Amino acid sequence: MLNKDLNILIVGLGLIGGSYAEGLTKNGYHVNAITRSETSINYALEHNLIKEGSCIVKPELINNADLIIFALYPKVLIKWLQTNQQYFKKGVVLTDVTGIKTWVIKEIKKFLRPDVDFVFHHPMAGKEVYGVQNADYHIFENANYIIIKGENNQESSLKMIEDLGHVLNFRKIAYLTKEEHDEMIGFLSQLTHCIAVVLMNSKESKHLVDYTGDSFRDLTRIASINEEMWTELFLLNKEALLKEINNFLNTFNLLKVAIEKNDEKTIKEMMKLSTYRRSFFNKKGD
Amino acid sequence: MLNKDLNILIVGLGLIGGSYAEGLTKNGYHVNAITRSETSINYALEHNLIKEGSCIVKPELINNADLIIFALYPKVLIKWLQTNQQYFKKGVVLTDVTGIKTWVIKEIKKFLRPDVDFVFHHPMAGKEVYGVQNADYHIFENANYIIIKGENNQESSLKMIEDLGHVLNFRKIAYLTKEEHDEMIGFLSQLTHCIAVVLMNSKESKHLVDYTGDSFRDLTRIASINEEMWTELFLLNKEALLKEINNFLNTFNLLKVAIEKNDEKTIKEMMKLSTYRRSFFNKKGD
Repeated sequence: MLNKDLNILIVGLGLIGGSYAEGLTKNGYHVNAITRSETSINYALEHNLIKEGSCIVKPELINNADLIIFALYPKVLIKWLQTNQQYFKKGVVLTDVTGIKTWVIKEIKKFLRPDVDFVFHHPMAGKEVYGVQNADYHIFENANYIIIKGENNQESSLKMIEDLGHVLNFRKIAYLTKEEHDEMIGFLSQLTHCIAVVLMNSKESKHLVDYTGDSFRDLTRIASINEEMWTELFLLNKEALLKEINNFLNTFNLLKVAIEKNDEKTIKEMMKLSTYRRSFFNKKGD
Repeated sequence: MLNKDLNILIVGLGLIGGSYAEGLTKNGYHVNAITRSETSINYALEHNLIKEGSCIVKPELINNADLIIFALYPKVLIKWLQTNQQYFKKGVVLTDVTGIKTWVIKEIKKFLRPDVDFVFHHPMAGKEVYGVQNADYHIFENANYIIIKGENNQESSLKMIEDLGHVLNFRKIAYLTKEEHDEMIGFLSQLTHCIAVVLMNSKESKHLVDYTGDSFRDLTRIASINEEMWTELFLLNKEALLKEINNFLNTFNLLKVAIEKNDEKTIKEMMKLSTYRRSFFNKKGD
């Protein structure tokens, strides 16, 4: 169990930071927050998501923290650490919720103080809306929580980040290497967002709204996308993402040629393979 | 209102034919059926989906019908009509549920008896399971019902096919030309099925099941696909489908190049456009 006496600081009160704050506070933990927007801090205080908050960096808020959770965009995270790591308490456990890992870990390793312990993790949950005003820790109930085990992480710190996932009620807690994580994210999340964006870009479709069934809606739900965050995530995971995009486009070309040539055999084989592979992903109700 | 005295015949008792039978029978209509499989006929009789049924073509079943609904694959439909139109009662109203229209209408026009009236329609509903055993007329509640108005269709026949849609409780009944229908289907349905099939073909993904969130599941639900039916539908709508595929692949290439070149401006513009266009498709809960 995560120690109830921990002083937890969340840096970045967006949808995810806010949902962590809500989940931890509702479970009886002491949570403070630092975020740029005064509106977000006021909202979090008024709705009892946090005990104390500040929209400017207060060294004592940082220095008092035993566990700091960063819910920032990748590049903002790096800058924040460079500027403010001087205020960390020795031995503090740090963690982040960033959606890409190889780049973030490489950058942070370049300068991180050796007397703190950074355990990287990724909560695979989200919504198509943003901001602390939409915070809702129930989004974690059916989600996966991935921890990247670093060579130098202490067992007690890894345990603390695991416990954090348990408190927030994640469905599954798993370990991956940073490369495995980024490949998985490139395929399952980034490629699928690319597909949805491209599909909506490929045709003016407003006149088709009345004819649309659930499949099209399901497939394009993620076409509604925060362009600042996702552009950054795509480009910082460029190599893994481009590999998945090229795979996808090459495979699409096989299907296209088969259709052009009336090659029923190839089309049917591709459909059988997709049906077979999709079967492993079925949940009740699919 | 659809006349309760009509003698209705359904040819082809699969998921859709079976659901039509169920919906009509539950609303007090007299429904008979002809389908190849004896198991399907027996199931439909045992579950009171139909009054009378046969797995061989019985001329008197056909000759007694005032309204015949064909729920067959396109090529089977053509053959069936060629063989059995001799048994139609003069003036019978015919309709179909085929998912593509230009090809079907062109073929049928070549030989159809001039003393019958064929009104083509398409119920935009389905499931990822098949057969009369899965019949469920509730799938029509949120679905669209498209009627293709032919030059020679009588007003009374069009009215009958509209009323059929009302009895089955479709959400919306709309008219399209066959070309509009096939373009719409090429984009909203066939291209999206291609995407899902290609995505599942592009990578062996079983090891990723544990990390999968709802977006990937939503996007690939339709990757589970009946290869016989969909291959036929793809190839009979080849021209319209290839146009959508090429649009999609060209657009994907723009995004790919933008990612390769770190062209943030283009990526963000595409994401903004996709968010804007998707907004018209939002339903409550999206």
